[in-house]
Amino acid sequence: MIVILQSNVTEEQIDHVLQRIEALGLQHHLSRGTFRTIVGIIGDEEKLQSEPLHAIPGVAQVIPVLPPYKLASREAHPEPSIVDVSGVKIGNGHLGMIAGPCSVEDRDRMFRIAESVCESGANLFRGGAYKPRTSPYAFQGLGEAGLKLLREVGDKFNLPVVTEVTDPRLVELVSEHADMLQVGARNMQNFALLTEVGKSQRPVLLKRGMSATINDLLMCAEYILSQGNMNVVLCERGVKGFDSLTRNLFDVAAVPLIHNLSHLPVIVDPSHATGRPDLIPSCALAGLAAGADGVHIEVHDCPEEAKSDGPQALLPDQYRQLADQMKELAKLFGKTVSPLPEKMA
Amino acid sequence: MIVILQSNVTEEQIDHVLQRIEALGLQHHLSRGTFRTIVGIIGDEEKLQSEPLHAIPGVAQVIPVLPPYKLASREAHPEPSIVDVSGVKIGNGHLGMIAGPCSVEDRDRMFRIAESVCESGANLFRGGAYKPRTSPYAFQGLGEAGLKLLREVGDKFNLPVVTEVTDPRLVELVSEHADMLQVGARNMQNFALLTEVGKSQRPVLLKRGMSATINDLLMCAEYILSQGNMNVVLCERGVKGFDSLTRNLFDVAAVPLIHNLSHLPVIVDPSHATGRPDLIPSCALAGLAAGADGVHIEVHDCPEEAKSDGPQALLPDQYRQLADQMKELAKLFGKTVSPLPEKMA
Amino acid sequence: MIVILQSNVTEEQIDHVLQRIEALGLQHHLSRGTFRTIVGIIGDEEKLQSEPLHAIPGVAQVIPVLPPYKLASREAHPEPSIVDVSGVKIGNGHLGMIAGPCSVEDRDRMFRIAESVCESGANLFRGGAYKPRTSPYAFQGLGEAGLKLLREVGDKFNLPVVTEVTDPRLVELVSEHADMLQVGARNMQNFALLTEVGKSQRPVLLKRGMSATINDLLMCAEYILSQGNMNVVLCERGVKGFDSLTRNLFDVAAVPLIHNLSHLPVIVDPSHATGRPDLIPSCALAGLAAGADGVHIEVHDCPEEAKSDGPQALLPDQYRQLADQMKELAKLFGKTVSPLPEKMA
Amino acid sequence: MIVILQSNVTEEQIDHVLQRIEALGLQHHLSRGTFRTIVGIIGDEEKLQSEPLHAIPGVAQVIPVLPPYKLASREAHPEPSIVDVSGVKIGNGHLGMIAGPCSVEDRDRMFRIAESVCESGANLFRGGAYKPRTSPYAFQGLGEAGLKLLREVGDKFNLPVVTEVTDPRLVELVSEHADMLQVGARNMQNFALLTEVGKSQRPVLLKRGMSATINDLLMCAEYILSQGNMNVVLCERGVKGFDSLTRNLFDVAAVPLIHNLSHLPVIVDPSHATGRPDLIPSCALAGLAAGADGVHIEVHDCPEEAKSDGPQALLPDQYRQLADQMKELAKLFGKTVSPLPEKMA
Repeated sequence: MIVILQSNVTEEQIDHVLQRIEALGLQHHLSRGTFRTIVGIIGDEEKLQSEPLHAIPGVAQVIPVLPPYKLASREAHPEPSIVDVSGVKIGNGHLGMIAGPCSVEDRDRMFRIAESVCESGANLFRGGAYKPRTSPYAFQGLGEAGLKLLREVGDKFNLPVVTEVTDPRLVELVSEHADMLQVGARNMQNFALLTEVGKSQRPVLLKRGMSATINDLLMCAEYILSQGNMNVVLCERGVKGFDSLTRNLFDVAAVPLIHNLSHLPVIVDPSHATGRPDLIPSCALAGLAAGADGVHIEVHDCPEEAKSDGPQALLPDQYRQLADQMKELAKLFGKTVSPLPEKMA
Repeated sequence: MIVILQSNVTEEQIDHVLQRIEALGLQHHLSRGTFRTIVGIIGDEEKLQSEPLHAIPGVAQVIPVLPPYKLASREAHPEPSIVDVSGVKIGNGHLGMIAGPCSVEDRDRMFRIAESVCESGANLFRGGAYKPRTSPYAFQGLGEAGLKLLREVGDKFNLPVVTEVTDPRLVELVSEHADMLQVGARNMQNFALLTEVGKSQRPVLLKRGMSATINDLLMCAEYILSQGNMNVVLCERGVKGFDSLTRNLFDVAAVPLIHNLSHLPVIVDPSHATGRPDLIPSCALAGLAAGADGVHIEVHDCPEEAKSDGPQALLPDQYRQLADQMKELAKLFGKTVSPLPEKMA
Repeated sequence: MIVILQSNVTEEQIDHVLQRIEALGLQHHLSRGTFRTIVGIIGDEEKLQSEPLHAIPGVAQVIPVLPPYKLASREAHPEPSIVDVSGVKIGNGHLGMIAGPCSVEDRDRMFRIAESVCESGANLFRGGAYKPRTSPYAFQGLGEAGLKLLREVGDKFNLPVVTEVTDPRLVELVSEHADMLQVGARNMQNFALLTEVGKSQRPVLLKRGMSATINDLLMCAEYILSQGNMNVVLCERGVKGFDSLTRNLFDVAAVPLIHNLSHLPVIVDPSHATGRPDLIPSCALAGLAAGADGVHIEVHDCPEEAKSDGPQALLPDQYRQLADQMKELAKLFGKTVSPLPEKMA
Repeated sequence: MIVILQSNVTEEQIDHVLQRIEALGLQHHLSRGTFRTIVGIIGDEEKLQSEPLHAIPGVAQVIPVLPPYKLASREAHPEPSIVDVSGVKIGNGHLGMIAGPCSVEDRDRMFRIAESVCESGANLFRGGAYKPRTSPYAFQGLGEAGLKLLREVGDKFNLPVVTEVTDPRLVELVSEHADMLQVGARNMQNFALLTEVGKSQRPVLLKRGMSATINDLLMCAEYILSQGNMNVVLCERGVKGFDSLTRNLFDVAAVPLIHNLSHLPVIVDPSHATGRPDLIPSCALAGLAAGADGVHIEVHDCPEEAKSDGPQALLPDQYRQLADQMKELAKLFGKTVSPLPEKMA
């Protein structure tokens, strides 16, 4: 931690800053410049995280030199992690290909879509049973019935399933039915939920919030990891932008940036990032080329009948075509699409 | 709702669009322009909210003409609402002056700060017992002990108290102790939490999320209102900006904009909006001049010892000075600071 | 300047960094922490501005401790500046009330609007003769004829005039006719233009770019000041936001922030910041309450006939009412509206 | 154009709106809904671009149905354009590989870098002679001497050169020496400059402004096209973001979005978009995978000695490795790197 003092700091204030540092059992290193005096703090920066050094009179700025996350950091775990979702691997060369409708809807449709994406090469099936909708008057999901239907689909095709959990009270129930728990963008900083999924044994798909920095995202992963659940996959799904032509702004540079800072796998979700089927394939390929460990795509066989997010779904045929391109690209980069498990774990 | 068709739309596609509209029991009005054909939909737009018209082949754009919120809208309720917090009124000329430390901390400090802000003219005391911290390693609040302490403070000074609730499982407990429930910015779209506070009888302080449009914010208020709790106060507390000199970007225009669209009171929180004590007073006054129904300020008697957000707190004396200016300004605009209740409701 | 080295920096790399600093005639101060080594650079930071220290192998981060602007800084000039526009003062308690149509249009209209805003208390008349329009097919302004008309209006009412200059080749011509030169938001970083207006003797109204940080804005002011023209007034006119309900996002906190960092006067332009007449008055008052040294408002007597930006203009009567409120508010803050000159300088 | 009227619009106001439309020689189509009345305007929307319909009393919203650009639009020119830069083709399957230092610096260094990127497969050499620097005290470029040096390098390697022009007065001079004119992000809406480069015969590389929507960018291209210069290549180089870990936010989805809306080629500049050499290769590949018609990369043989932007330059060896990957990826997508001309046009 580096403390930059104000230009008009007094000797008394300097002494007070140094005493505060000593009181925490840390050492300091004073450097008087021509225009500013700075204090380097030597020792474990963590002790300082809850200390409002910035509020001490005479302090102009406090600059941390270490990232505030530990378990999620690349320094703590230099090798890329592989997350195993009931036999399907994601990370370090293994691609997760997640596909399925936005919401779990009627039984026939679910089986039809699952069969199709499975044939195209998807290795994880998605569908929301609890939907966080911006309108209280919109379809809120099938709830537990949806979870059971999702499980049935997964068992039938030997295809692990991922679904969103929106409420800490539901983590146990959702964990019984799903292979992977999704924490959505709007709940990225729902710390009660993060703590609860951190206590579960299920792998977690943590989506980046719409105004979350990479640091914010990794701190939320840290919440989960610090509860003992090390199976976290991060997901870039677009941040808030100023151009209304797309739903969000797809931050593809987040992929290599996260890979530099953390060992956790990171996938991309061009469906939510763009909200436009005409842009999804290009952005999916861009994500893979940037090094993503997987791609999350919404697929629906009749978007105009979808209960939610229909306008951003690909048709099964469009997904097949994209999946073929993704597999070609993966090959070029020496990556493999993790096969379906023989029998689910 | 207006549906703009693609330039190359076929007659078959037009027929299909019209049939979909009719099937919903609505009328349509076709208008063939030189370059584009558009369809006006006549009838209750609400029926269309869950319908993905945009996904119908041949449709280029769907433009709603009515806001998606009803209970929160000015059209539904032309008079400005007044929210009563245990005897203190907010809205329609009554100012809520909320002040207190970021976190509930030790007993003596709480009484000391409360006494001071009370003398300065605050009519609502704030303090967090459950803190949504970006780091899992940071102070997370005193929990139930904090709630009890807050209640004690409130009773002693006859000063209603507001505190954040972060988990749907805690709404009942927090409602027992606090006069007003705060939903924080990070939880603005935590729909499970909104639903739960909507079922409570306590007034709610709903803070705007960091990347929430005004429409998003009003839809979240609608979640609470639609559960039967009509006592919602909105709070502008800064949105995500690109200039790191301030913590957030204070969107003061949100105040008159919300007043135009909704009958709900709206207050400002310059403490979180700027994160800088040197900017807080100016922004508080700006908020009032823009028509805010109250101001939320963090106050701490020793910021360098604060358990959270110390660097953005005003000192009690700074608050007193600001409160005097706010009262002067209120007078100019013909507003009054709602007095403390004789005895709390 | 503080240089933070990478965690795996070698001794050779450290030596190289130190040699580079010495070669610039500066001293260094090495501090080896538990996790990171940092180097404080002692001496004139300016020498380092063109030096890419960040590109030296082993360097993780370079943190400046001084602002990169000098002439614009509060440290260089602790007293607030007053800019004199042909007898009308702006800054340090003197309010500039700028009003007028977006574009210079026909003669009668100009005289009519000027007379009205003059009566309401405006002390600077605005109107664009060269319009930076987003469409090449839109009205581009009357050019020189517009300048002359503007001058006539100014002379008639003894009212200084401000108009935009968009091209370095036009600075001389515009300076002949106008009392103050406006550099628009889209040209804030048009350095050729800044240099040219810096060489002129006319005061400059420099508008903040839509994605400019305060640092960026002050660096652009520095361009003008460094050419010898010290008469610069800054203008906050909204930054790019994500909510399409308003044209831009009015950053009112920029006013006190600039006042802290710089001695230059700063005014607000709620017309461009919001783009909505229904929000302009509230935001104008908010700007003043935040400490602005003036307010810039577009006024038109028949907005539906305006050649540009009609939808965001106030009517003369609306301006009169707002001006009265602004004068009341100014009085409360101990500020005065600088009177029109007896005879223009 | 669709005009949505206010809910409380009067019959008189409706009549007035219709009269205004008729007066422009256009037809209208009135549709009275349950809650709102809308007016469809039939005829040439262009006539309406300068008309402030929005300012007419009773009008709530005006929604254009056609894009405001014509020459740049895909509708006007369905086939993708190919821009020829002195023999090197960009667009429709031909990749432009632009590389070189940020600034033109000393002679030996220029030849050394050019030789290296040429061997790696670059087909356009870049280097700034006029530098738009945020600080007036920073290196501003070698000016005309830099242009001449750049020309020499181009002639020696038979490699077309691109350089930035920052001032309308310099367009003629720069056109004499360079094969392609760059308009930088900060000057994207410098309409005087756009008009001047539109009159030149040189192809133009138009970089997207930091807060420009795609519509804004295409309107700026329209400025150039409308002057008769049809050789415009667009460049995505990152927009303003909220995460300070990267210099800008790389908007890779802009590539397919522009391809959908316009026939103009679009390239990506991951150097400016990220500002970090560790992210540049991944983002360059992402851009290509998204369909970019070229990649712009800053290369320097000793970044710590670079006169500008050193920290974001790749080393020649890093560029060679990236160029090899880009060529592989291009092959997969059926694209070719346009070879150097036998002899320059």
